[in-house]
Amino acid sequence: MEIINSSQNQYLKYLKKLYKTRKRKKENVFILEGKNIIEEACNLEMDFEYIFMTPEFHEKNKLDIKDFSPDKINIKYIEKKLLGKIADTVSPQGIIAIVKKPDYKFKQFKNKKNLLILDQIQDPGNMGTLIRTAVAAGMDGIIALKGCVDIYNLKVIRATMGTIFALPILTRIDLQQFKNLYQKNNFNLITAESSRGEIYSKVEYESPLMIVIGNEARGVRSEIIGLSDRLVKIPVFGDIDSLNAAIAGGIILYKSVEKNRTL
Amino acid sequence: MEIINSSQNQYLKYLKKLYKTRKRKKENVFILEGKNIIEEACNLEMDFEYIFMTPEFHEKNKLDIKDFSPDKINIKYIEKKLLGKIADTVSPQGIIAIVKKPDYKFKQFKNKKNLLILDQIQDPGNMGTLIRTAVAAGMDGIIALKGCVDIYNLKVIRATMGTIFALPILTRIDLQQFKNLYQKNNFNLITAESSRGEIYSKVEYESPLMIVIGNEARGVRSEIIGLSDRLVKIPVFGDIDSLNAAIAGGIILYKSVEKNRTL
Repeated sequence: MEIINSSQNQYLKYLKKLYKTRKRKKENVFILEGKNIIEEACNLEMDFEYIFMTPEFHEKNKLDIKDFSPDKINIKYIEKKLLGKIADTVSPQGIIAIVKKPDYKFKQFKNKKNLLILDQIQDPGNMGTLIRTAVAAGMDGIIALKGCVDIYNLKVIRATMGTIFALPILTRIDLQQFKNLYQKNNFNLITAESSRGEIYSKVEYESPLMIVIGNEARGVRSEIIGLSDRLVKIPVFGDIDSLNAAIAGGIILYKSVEKNRTL
Repeated sequence: MEIINSSQNQYLKYLKKLYKTRKRKKENVFILEGKNIIEEACNLEMDFEYIFMTPEFHEKNKLDIKDFSPDKINIKYIEKKLLGKIADTVSPQGIIAIVKKPDYKFKQFKNKKNLLILDQIQDPGNMGTLIRTAVAAGMDGIIALKGCVDIYNLKVIRATMGTIFALPILTRIDLQQFKNLYQKNNFNLITAESSRGEIYSKVEYESPLMIVIGNEARGVRSEIIGLSDRLVKIPVFGDIDSLNAAIAGGIILYKSVEKNRTL
């Protein structure tokens, strides 16, 4: 077993570079840290570029994770100290993977029945929680418009609690592409807007449905508001301007669930 | 104007110590960073111990914040570099305050109509978001049972987005005290439970109401489940165990709003 023990190793230098968003985008890959999420990605037969693990992790887990065999995946063993230095998490559990981004097709989204549209969501925790909530609510896809935080950011992935692969997610879609998808496929476009609009609980959420949640401070962009079939608001009672974006998303997504499914 | 320029200054050393949870608890104070939240605390006439500000902040803001006069509040001026080193936020905006914890009385909670009860909520972001959501939903108090993250943790305060003072919040209440409050005052105790219970949208939320949200991983403790008048669950559809605790709180709080108010 060859073990990487120098920070000058070419594979390690490549991994290090991928902790920068720009480099990840260029290479079209993302990073996973920790056993559970990497196991999940294995089960879903994601396309791995490399898996870095410590000899200690290999020793402890070789019986548990049968797919982690060097025959199937390009595994690099690495000293615990070096792996600890590079990882984003405090305790990376001895394993980091580089995974190729899933290639979800735009045209697949034409026939979806329930989509969550995210406009300029900036906070990684909100983004991850919105993805997790959309999965829970049984949505069948998410579109993260250009201007959202990178969904393959490690903080986002952690906040999804293992649901990052559970739904197809289109990213970096611009307003024109979005407009085309909406208009050519007769979606019912319902946009959350904190100050105007109808009360969220009083409208119907007919399929094919798009629910739009916008930026934490500025809300949804005016171009999308202009396109919308309905604007909905969640009333607030206390001395407060608005709800957190993920909370607003959760309330509206579950209202659409309630109206359209037998609970 | 006397300006603190040494890290050995006694007031600065005291402030530094208060960045430890234990020390804050002992002194019964908490820390605020940044202009907006400190301004809010001023407006609410919170009890300040000290305000530390840079001469630059004083210069820039003296017209805006009239209550920040040394006659009313004990102000210490401090070099920008020293303040930057001590602060938790990346850009503390030149102002940090030490505030005495509000003294909310247990007995005031007897006559409340709508309470949010938090059981072992651990994540500061969830705690802050739950407080913000309870304020939005017009709840009239929160009880954070013993075992929750410190609500005066700076990360919690940031996540409340300025609503930390908007509601009375009892903290460090033990199960026996909670049980007494519940039983002596005929509260309707509704507990969120991810696996059992009735569908959240199908029950009534009569006042005086207590809604309980539990720990991110373990849920609500069995003692509270045993006491509950109703258990409610939010169904999930995708390949997922449960919702984020703050999202579950948001959905259930707004369901109670919807059932009890004219929206």
